[in-house]
Amino acid sequence: MFAMRAKDLYDVNDLCHEEVMEIFEESKEIKKAYLRGEKIFSLSDKTGCNLFVEPSTRTKNSFELAEKYLSMNVLNFNTSSSAFSKKETLKDTILTMKSMKIDLFVVRHKEPGTPVFIRKYSDASIINAGDGLHAHPTQAILDAFTMYENFNSFKGLKVSIIGDFYHSRVVRSNIKLLNMLGADVTICSPTTLSPREIRTLPIKYTYDLKEAIKNADVVMGLRMQLERQSQGLFPSLKEYNKYFGIKEELFETLANKNAILMHPGPINRGVELSGDIADKPYSKILDQVQNGVITRIALIKHLLGGDSL
Amino acid sequence: MFAMRAKDLYDVNDLCHEEVMEIFEESKEIKKAYLRGEKIFSLSDKTGCNLFVEPSTRTKNSFELAEKYLSMNVLNFNTSSSAFSKKETLKDTILTMKSMKIDLFVVRHKEPGTPVFIRKYSDASIINAGDGLHAHPTQAILDAFTMYENFNSFKGLKVSIIGDFYHSRVVRSNIKLLNMLGADVTICSPTTLSPREIRTLPIKYTYDLKEAIKNADVVMGLRMQLERQSQGLFPSLKEYNKYFGIKEELFETLANKNAILMHPGPINRGVELSGDIADKPYSKILDQVQNGVITRIALIKHLLGGDSL
Amino acid sequence: MFAMRAKDLYDVNDLCHEEVMEIFEESKEIKKAYLRGEKIFSLSDKTGCNLFVEPSTRTKNSFELAEKYLSMNVLNFNTSSSAFSKKETLKDTILTMKSMKIDLFVVRHKEPGTPVFIRKYSDASIINAGDGLHAHPTQAILDAFTMYENFNSFKGLKVSIIGDFYHSRVVRSNIKLLNMLGADVTICSPTTLSPREIRTLPIKYTYDLKEAIKNADVVMGLRMQLERQSQGLFPSLKEYNKYFGIKEELFETLANKNAILMHPGPINRGVELSGDIADKPYSKILDQVQNGVITRIALIKHLLGGDSL
Repeated sequence: MFAMRAKDLYDVNDLCHEEVMEIFEESKEIKKAYLRGEKIFSLSDKTGCNLFVEPSTRTKNSFELAEKYLSMNVLNFNTSSSAFSKKETLKDTILTMKSMKIDLFVVRHKEPGTPVFIRKYSDASIINAGDGLHAHPTQAILDAFTMYENFNSFKGLKVSIIGDFYHSRVVRSNIKLLNMLGADVTICSPTTLSPREIRTLPIKYTYDLKEAIKNADVVMGLRMQLERQSQGLFPSLKEYNKYFGIKEELFETLANKNAILMHPGPINRGVELSGDIADKPYSKILDQVQNGVITRIALIKHLLGGDSL
Repeated sequence: MFAMRAKDLYDVNDLCHEEVMEIFEESKEIKKAYLRGEKIFSLSDKTGCNLFVEPSTRTKNSFELAEKYLSMNVLNFNTSSSAFSKKETLKDTILTMKSMKIDLFVVRHKEPGTPVFIRKYSDASIINAGDGLHAHPTQAILDAFTMYENFNSFKGLKVSIIGDFYHSRVVRSNIKLLNMLGADVTICSPTTLSPREIRTLPIKYTYDLKEAIKNADVVMGLRMQLERQSQGLFPSLKEYNKYFGIKEELFETLANKNAILMHPGPINRGVELSGDIADKPYSKILDQVQNGVITRIALIKHLLGGDSL
Repeated sequence: MFAMRAKDLYDVNDLCHEEVMEIFEESKEIKKAYLRGEKIFSLSDKTGCNLFVEPSTRTKNSFELAEKYLSMNVLNFNTSSSAFSKKETLKDTILTMKSMKIDLFVVRHKEPGTPVFIRKYSDASIINAGDGLHAHPTQAILDAFTMYENFNSFKGLKVSIIGDFYHSRVVRSNIKLLNMLGADVTICSPTTLSPREIRTLPIKYTYDLKEAIKNADVVMGLRMQLERQSQGLFPSLKEYNKYFGIKEELFETLANKNAILMHPGPINRGVELSGDIADKPYSKILDQVQNGVITRIALIKHLLGGDSL
């Protein structure tokens, strides 16, 4: 029981510990139903608007599948054919959509804080699907759920996150949620991609890949955001892979027995992940994709108040 | 009762007075159901094709929501990935779509007369969603319905429409419909944007903004179609706003008590509308957006012959 | 009865003769239901992903209508807003989509063999919607079904296919299927567009249009793929039309009584087809479009194992 149920998700701390665990338990039930092909009709009177102003495949598809699974009416906001080209401001777009009776906005935008800005003009539920370098809370939720499926507890769970800390909105949300849940987080990132901010976080920091992998239960690579990368922060992709690419031998000799490999995707093979490590049995990367749909179904039901299964 | 029910809507005069009023009464009922989240299933065996060859957000979304609300199967014709790039003529596209069994074409095209052209090759219902500078009848219907909601009668209603007459297809449909319904229409437009055609219409014309707003029940700004604007027709947007921008003080001192402000959107703040006037209680701009969905539901039911609620 | 039911369709020979005839008989029943506006709900628990990496209107719309008619959940993979721009490989895209639980991939891609490549990473059903110059089996199926509707038998049916053999994936699938079904196929193609491969096929070849049309039951024009055409293979479109354009007079004097005209579309009027021949009663070009939706419904049901009507 909790006093006030969240209606929006700007970042993971809009949910309390109890709500997260409720979403995880609900996700377990939904996953069984989903894999049996059973649909949920409880939100058939709701309309969701997917407002993706940054390109995205997996997150957008994942939300769309989740909404359709819940029998929602789905409106995809196509930015290229949109009023944005007519200089309509985001404010007026939201006011317009709101007037059409939207119950949920799923928003991705390059400007941090856009989902909070939208709140000013709409009383629909809002889910942040990534705002600049700020946050990507639904990724953190699906990541944590994938860990929960494998370990059934976060207490003392050793999670090492490896890669470009600086340009990752995923890692910022991951750290918050994993801390809330009680895991021990280690960040391993090249010094040039590790801003001072990192020293203020409740994590361990190292630039030594071996140290990060050693005794880890979860080894998570971060995507090199090649298109976002400021130039000159590291010599080359090959050099990056040499020092920070996760290799089979390191994983299999240093990580804990039963350790799992994760990555938010899409992966750059040969950069963050060496060889065929993404295809190994301990790689849960594709489970993460599936759990993305599942946890988004559970989250939307939670926020919009759909009946339990 | 009327002899022949319209099947197509090229412009507002395809409907007779009685049909318009029937659509308005139906819209009132639909609006209640829509806001309660109730769906209408009467057209679940029909397929609508939204053929938007000009960019559009609000009109396209509005039609799509209306069609989905009626449980129609919706096909969005994406022009960029379309056979148009293969030089397939519009004729053959329509013949092709017709063969796939389309019940309704919603068409936006830069060439005036395109919806009538389509009729030659298809017996589906056709709704004009804007053809060049010719007509935009569903906008006129939603505008008039919004007035009807506020004043419950058109007899002697003073409607002043302010802005770029020349480049507006909306205003041409508005004048026809408001005349049919019995309203008194005043047009206020810069002389350089007021073609000779304007003298032949059953309206009052003025270039004096104060005169237009004085004693008006409805003050409607038109969008400056910046992207369509021929150059040199007025000195600057600032100059335009100075002489033709609708300002709070003018509206509140000159217009009738209970007067309302309207605009077909998307608005250019600081051009057609000054300051925060769009956000005032007498602004019905967002009501127009919502009524757009509602009246399009009613119109499609009317044209396709769905059962009454 | 057949030993193993096909699950994928890379090319027509993934189906045996009996399966093709079963699909045709099912198509006849579905066509009646489709034209009455009756829906089929048997696949409402399945999700289809339309992965079109080459532009397409009619094939994409046709598949989408077929999937929606079967009440499937449909995910359109929009390549321009996709992870392809993030250099995600096709492999990882498929793995990702698979994890979201896709039951059917419909794939168009410029690289021959892409659908087979996809099989390696997914156990969903796969339908080839055109892979480079290799194959386009669903077009061949709808073409053959249109012939079956008109002649009720393939035994000794004289089918003449006229046009650019070299750049056509349609003709390659047509030849295989028509041979399986027992028709006699003649190819008429300019010598510069007739590769040596053509000599190895179980067909008659001629470059004389009159000879091809004479005594034909079916005269099928192929689309000049203007955008794919290597330069210099023929003098001009006018010249092409002079020698290979199908003209009313030739058709009406040389082809068999009851002969039909076909074309996979979109047609280039004045190039492959002269004058108004596409609009004559013996032209079945629009029947082909409609049969495209119908046979795709039947095919998807066949591959995914939906219940019979």
